[in-house]
Amino acid sequence: MADCDNLSAVLHRALDLRLEQRPIPEPGPGEVLLRVLCVGICGSDVHYWNHGRTARFVVESPLVLGHETAAQVVRCGPDVSHLQPGTVVALEPGVPCRRCSLCRGGRYNLCPRMRFHATPPVDGTLTRYFVHPADFCFRLPDHMSAEDGALLEPLAVAVHSCRRARVGPQSRVLVTGAGPIGQVSVLVAKAMGATHICITDINEGRLQFARKLGADSAVCVAGMGVEEAAAAVVAAGGPPTAALECSGADSSLVTAIHAADAGCVIATVGRGSLEPLLPVPLLTAKEVEICGIFRYANCYPAALALLASGAVNARQLISHRFTLEEVEEAFQAAKSGVAIKVMIKVGEKS
Amino acid sequence: MADCDNLSAVLHRALDLRLEQRPIPEPGPGEVLLRVLCVGICGSDVHYWNHGRTARFVVESPLVLGHETAAQVVRCGPDVSHLQPGTVVALEPGVPCRRCSLCRGGRYNLCPRMRFHATPPVDGTLTRYFVHPADFCFRLPDHMSAEDGALLEPLAVAVHSCRRARVGPQSRVLVTGAGPIGQVSVLVAKAMGATHICITDINEGRLQFARKLGADSAVCVAGMGVEEAAAAVVAAGGPPTAALECSGADSSLVTAIHAADAGCVIATVGRGSLEPLLPVPLLTAKEVEICGIFRYANCYPAALALLASGAVNARQLISHRFTLEEVEEAFQAAKSGVAIKVMIKVGEKS
Amino acid sequence: MADCDNLSAVLHRALDLRLEQRPIPEPGPGEVLLRVLCVGICGSDVHYWNHGRTARFVVESPLVLGHETAAQVVRCGPDVSHLQPGTVVALEPGVPCRRCSLCRGGRYNLCPRMRFHATPPVDGTLTRYFVHPADFCFRLPDHMSAEDGALLEPLAVAVHSCRRARVGPQSRVLVTGAGPIGQVSVLVAKAMGATHICITDINEGRLQFARKLGADSAVCVAGMGVEEAAAAVVAAGGPPTAALECSGADSSLVTAIHAADAGCVIATVGRGSLEPLLPVPLLTAKEVEICGIFRYANCYPAALALLASGAVNARQLISHRFTLEEVEEAFQAAKSGVAIKVMIKVGEKS
Amino acid sequence: MADCDNLSAVLHRALDLRLEQRPIPEPGPGEVLLRVLCVGICGSDVHYWNHGRTARFVVESPLVLGHETAAQVVRCGPDVSHLQPGTVVALEPGVPCRRCSLCRGGRYNLCPRMRFHATPPVDGTLTRYFVHPADFCFRLPDHMSAEDGALLEPLAVAVHSCRRARVGPQSRVLVTGAGPIGQVSVLVAKAMGATHICITDINEGRLQFARKLGADSAVCVAGMGVEEAAAAVVAAGGPPTAALECSGADSSLVTAIHAADAGCVIATVGRGSLEPLLPVPLLTAKEVEICGIFRYANCYPAALALLASGAVNARQLISHRFTLEEVEEAFQAAKSGVAIKVMIKVGEKS
Repeated sequence: MADCDNLSAVLHRALDLRLEQRPIPEPGPGEVLLRVLCVGICGSDVHYWNHGRTARFVVESPLVLGHETAAQVVRCGPDVSHLQPGTVVALEPGVPCRRCSLCRGGRYNLCPRMRFHATPPVDGTLTRYFVHPADFCFRLPDHMSAEDGALLEPLAVAVHSCRRARVGPQSRVLVTGAGPIGQVSVLVAKAMGATHICITDINEGRLQFARKLGADSAVCVAGMGVEEAAAAVVAAGGPPTAALECSGADSSLVTAIHAADAGCVIATVGRGSLEPLLPVPLLTAKEVEICGIFRYANCYPAALALLASGAVNARQLISHRFTLEEVEEAFQAAKSGVAIKVMIKVGEKS
Repeated sequence: MADCDNLSAVLHRALDLRLEQRPIPEPGPGEVLLRVLCVGICGSDVHYWNHGRTARFVVESPLVLGHETAAQVVRCGPDVSHLQPGTVVALEPGVPCRRCSLCRGGRYNLCPRMRFHATPPVDGTLTRYFVHPADFCFRLPDHMSAEDGALLEPLAVAVHSCRRARVGPQSRVLVTGAGPIGQVSVLVAKAMGATHICITDINEGRLQFARKLGADSAVCVAGMGVEEAAAAVVAAGGPPTAALECSGADSSLVTAIHAADAGCVIATVGRGSLEPLLPVPLLTAKEVEICGIFRYANCYPAALALLASGAVNARQLISHRFTLEEVEEAFQAAKSGVAIKVMIKVGEKS
Repeated sequence: MADCDNLSAVLHRALDLRLEQRPIPEPGPGEVLLRVLCVGICGSDVHYWNHGRTARFVVESPLVLGHETAAQVVRCGPDVSHLQPGTVVALEPGVPCRRCSLCRGGRYNLCPRMRFHATPPVDGTLTRYFVHPADFCFRLPDHMSAEDGALLEPLAVAVHSCRRARVGPQSRVLVTGAGPIGQVSVLVAKAMGATHICITDINEGRLQFARKLGADSAVCVAGMGVEEAAAAVVAAGGPPTAALECSGADSSLVTAIHAADAGCVIATVGRGSLEPLLPVPLLTAKEVEICGIFRYANCYPAALALLASGAVNARQLISHRFTLEEVEEAFQAAKSGVAIKVMIKVGEKS
Repeated sequence: MADCDNLSAVLHRALDLRLEQRPIPEPGPGEVLLRVLCVGICGSDVHYWNHGRTARFVVESPLVLGHETAAQVVRCGPDVSHLQPGTVVALEPGVPCRRCSLCRGGRYNLCPRMRFHATPPVDGTLTRYFVHPADFCFRLPDHMSAEDGALLEPLAVAVHSCRRARVGPQSRVLVTGAGPIGQVSVLVAKAMGATHICITDINEGRLQFARKLGADSAVCVAGMGVEEAAAAVVAAGGPPTAALECSGADSSLVTAIHAADAGCVIATVGRGSLEPLLPVPLLTAKEVEICGIFRYANCYPAALALLASGAVNARQLISHRFTLEEVEEAFQAAKSGVAIKVMIKVGEKS
C-alpha cells in the first residue's frame, strides 16, 4: 500500500497517550480494510485515558483508543459481497463469537467472547487503518456525513435502552443524567413516539441543552433528596412509565423508583459503580422492572434509519472538533465537562 | 333542563336517515351527560346508511348513527370524580362488560357484551345529548380542538394496529389502502419511528395525499397482479417488516404476504368481506404473522398524547365540514369517494 | 335466612383475635352470598395477627382475617348468570375498581382502589358468610376438593411470578426461600416446563420438603455469604435463567443477582422490608432484569387448570388442619415455623 | 482413518435410493468429525424419496438423505473446546451463515444462506461419517439414548411452535393432524403446562395413539365440514387459545380459525401446499393470529432439557427400527402410514 502512514492514538498507561505508527493490517475472509474518517470520544475512552481502567477492564499493554467510528472501505478480503472499495460505513465496534447460545439467540452483546474496540486487549479506531468484519459495517447513504456515522454508536445505546424500556406512544420517559447518552436518549425516545420526556441532572447548562433537543421538562436535582427529586419529576410530567438511568449516580436510580408509575420499566444505562440501597417494597407495590443495559444488539440498522430519515438530528450534539494530531486536546475537552460530544476528524472521504 | 332540543340523526332503514327529537337521558352512577360538539363520519356509518347493515350487524330498529365524537360534559352522575361540567372530552365509543375474562385481561375490545355506539342496537352520537361512562371520556387539553377529539377514534385504530404489528424504528411499513384508516396509519407509524412507509391504492389522488402526510413511497396498484404489486412495493422501499391491511381487498392481503420480509407482521385492519386464497407455504417459509385487528383497546391515551404533543397532525385529514342539519349532504360526501374525512359540527363549546 | 350464625375471626389489635358474630350480608347486583368451606392461613394473616399491621397497612378497626378461600354459593344477587346456589367456588380475594387505566389494561392487581380481603379496612373470609362479585368466583370441578380451592390463592402468586419471570422449558429456575410461596413456586415452575429448579433456604427441613415436591437441587445457605451462596447455586444446576425471590431476605436477592445467567429475570415475590445494596454493575454486565411482583392478575384460571388437570398437586402442602373455633391454635401453628400450610375448615359442602 | 467404510444412503432421483460409499471428510476449524449412531426418518425425507423434490427444493444431483441424527464425536477440528472424541451428541441439522441480520437477530432459521442436512444440495446424515460445526452439536447426558438424541429434531419443531403459539398453563391447545409432528406437539404442549389438548385427524388409530401420549380429547374429523369439525373441537374442550396446524390440510387451518377463542394464536407447522380460503372477518372479529413456523431456532437446548428431565418421553413414538442396510424397507414403512416414527440404526456407541 502506497500510503503506509498508520498514525494511532495509543494509551500506554493512565494519562500517557501517544501518537505512534502501527502496521497496516490485512483483511481476512469476511473482513474489510478501512480508512478512518472520524471518531467520537466516549466516556469510557476518557475513563481509560484518565484512570488506565474501567470497572472491569484494565489497560495492561498499549491500547489504541476510540470506538465510535465512521470509515471508508479500502479493500475487501475474500467472501465480502455487500461492500466495495470506497463505500463509507459506520462500524458496530463489538464483534461477538457468533457461536455461543447468546449469539445464536440474538443477544450477542452478552457474548462472553465479545471483542470490542478499545476494550483491553482489543485495539480501537483512533488510527488511520484497521480491519473489521464486513457484516458489522453499515453503509451510510450519500446524504449522511461521516460524523453522523460516528454518532450511530451512542444512538445505538439509546435505541437498545428505549426498546428494552418499551418506549412508545403514551410513554412518559424519565431520563436521569444529561450527559451525551442522556441527550441521545431524549432524541431517540422522542422519535419512538414518547409523549413526555423529563430529564434530570445537577447541571443547568446540560438541562438547557436537553430542552433544546426536545425534552419536555427538565429538573435540576442538585441538592435534592430522592423523594424530593421524585416529586419534582412527577410534578413536571406525571409519573414516568419508562426511565433511562444515564447518570451513573446511585440517587438517580432510587429517584426513578420513587417517581415510577405502576408497571414502569427502568433501564440502567449508565454504569459507573452504582450500588444503591434498593427499596424493594416500592418495586413490588408498583411492579416496577429494573432492566440492566449492556451496550446493544441489533440496533445499528434502527439507529441508522432514524438518522437517515431525519427523524433524529444527532449532529447538534457535537460541541467540539479536533484532528487526530490534536487528540490530547480532544481528551482534555471531553474530560472538562463543557463538551457534549467531541469528534476527532482522522481522514477525508476520497 | 332548559335546553330540551335533542335533535338526532336516526337511520330507519337503508338510505332513510331522519332528523328527529329524542329525549335527553339522565346520567347514572359513574356516567356523565354530554353535549356533542362534533362527530366524524366513519366508513361503517356510511355502510349502515347505504345498506342498513354491515357484515355482522343489521339495523332492525331506528338507530342513531355516529361514533367518532368530541363532547362537553353537562352534568356528572354519582361517583364521577375526574370530570366536571364544562370539561371537553373525546369519547371512546365502546363500553365493555368489565367482568369477563377478556375485560379483566386487558383485551376488552373482544368483550362479547361490548356496547359500541352506532352498532345495533346501541345508539350513536349524531345527537345533541347522550350519556356515557366517565372512564371512557378523555379530557382534551385546552390547546386541542373538538375536531382533534373526534379524530382520536380513527387514530386509536391506527395505534392499535401499529402496536400489534410491532412498528418501531427500523420498521419498513406497508400500508395497503389509502382511505381514512390508511392515512391515519401513515401518520401514526411515522410517529412511532417507522423508517420507511410505503402505501398502495388504486386511486392516485389518495396516494398523492398520503405522500403529503409523510408516506415515503406510494405505489398505484391499479391493474397489477399481486406478484407485480409486491415487486413494486419491494422496489420502492425494501421488503416490509410490518404491513397494515386497510383496503379490505383480498388482493392487498396477498400482496402483503408476497412482499413481506422474513418475520413480517401483517395486521388486517380493513374488514370488508375478505376471503383470499392464503399462500401458506410463503407464510411458513418467511415466518410471516397475520394478526386480526378489531377496533382497539387501551389506545385512546396514546392517540391523545400523539395529538396533544404535536407528533401527529390529524386535522389535515378533514376534507369536508357540515352541520348536524346537513347530515344527509355529509353522508353523500362521505360516500362519494372525494372526501378523506367528513366532520359534522353539532354544537359549540360553551 | 334460617341459619343466622355468622361466626367470624375478628382481629381487634395485635394478638387480640376474637370469635364474634357478624351480620350476614345481602348480595347486590353481580354478587353472590357465599358460605365458607375452608380458608388457608397466609403469612400476611399471621403478620397482621402478630403485629397489627404489615408494611403499608394498619389494623385500625376490627378486621376479619383470611383470604385464601373456598366457598359454596348460597344465593345469587341480580345479574349473575354463571353461578347457581350450591356451586362450589374458589375466590380471587381482590376486587379492583374495573375503571382505571390499570384495570382496563389488564393489570388490575395494581389498581389503586383495589379492595382485598383481610387488607384493612376490607374484611376477610374467616367467617361463615360473606358476599363477593360473581366474576371473581371460580367454579371448582367436582373432582377438586374445597382445600384445593383455597390453595389456588398461593398458586396464583406462583403462576404470576413464573409468567413474569418467563419460566418455560429450558429455564433453570432459582427459588430463594422455601416457605409456602417458595414451595408452590417449585410446583408451578415444574408444571410450566422448567428444566432445573434449585431452591435455597436456611432450614434443612423445608429444603427437604421442596425436594420431595420436585426441586432438582436444594442449597442450605445458612452461614454463607452471597458470593458463596451464588457459587453453590451455580454448582448445583448452572446459572439460573429465572429467579423467584420468595424469602424476603436482602441477601437472597443479591445472591440471585450474583448467580444469574446473562439475561436472567429475577422476580421479587417475597416482600418483607427488603432494602439490599443493589450491585448495578453486575445487573448491567449480564442484562439481568429485576421484576417486582404484587399479588397476581388473570392467574386464577391458570392455577385452577393446573390443579384440575393434575399437573400440580398442591394438597401435599397442607401440614395442619383446624376448625374455625380453633382459629387461635391455627395461628399459633402457622407462626411456629413447623407448619407449611395451615388450613382452617369452616363448613361442609351441602 | 483405519475404518474407511462410509456407507451412505444416496437418493439419485425419485425412488432411486442407493447405498454407496462416500469419502470420509476432514473437520475444519470449529468442526467435528462424527460417526452416526441413528437417524430418524422425517416426512420430508420420504417426500424427497417419493417425488425427488419438495415444494421448493429439487434433487438435481445425488443427495444423502436424513437429518434427525445422533452421533458420536470421532475427532475435533481446531478451535473446538466443549466436545471430545467419544462425546455422544444430537445434531441441529441446519447451519446458518451467522452473519446476516436474521442470524444476528436470533432468527437464524430464516437465514437465506442456511445449509440444512438433506435439503438440496446439502447432504444428509444417513451415512457413517460426516462433519458438522461443533456449536450445533448438543452433548447428550449419559442417561439419554442415541434414539432420544435423534428425536430431538422433531421435538425442536414442537418447542418452536409451542413457544410461538405462547402455550402455557391455561392454554387450550388444538393440534390438527396426528402425524409424528402432531404427536410430539402433544407431548411438548403438555410439558409446557397446557390445560387441555385436543387433537384432530381422519385416522382413528393415530388419534388413539395421541390419547395415550396425553391428548385430553381427540376428534375424528373424517367426513366433517370445517364448521362441524370446529363445533366438535369446541364441544370437546372449549375454544382453543392456541392451535398447531400439523396436518398440511387446507381444511384444518380453516377449522382452527372457526374453533378459535378470541386472541388465539394459530401456528402453521405442517407445510404441504396449503392454500385455503382465509375467512378474514372471523380472524378480525376474534383478533386471531396466524403465525408461520419454519423449522426452529434456539430450541435444541429446551428440547434436550425436556427429554433429559423426563418431562417428555419421546421414545414411545418409535414404531419401527431398521439398520442402514435396510434403508429401503425403512422408507417403505415410513411411507405406508402405519408407522409413527421410523428409526434407522447406523452404528453403535463405542
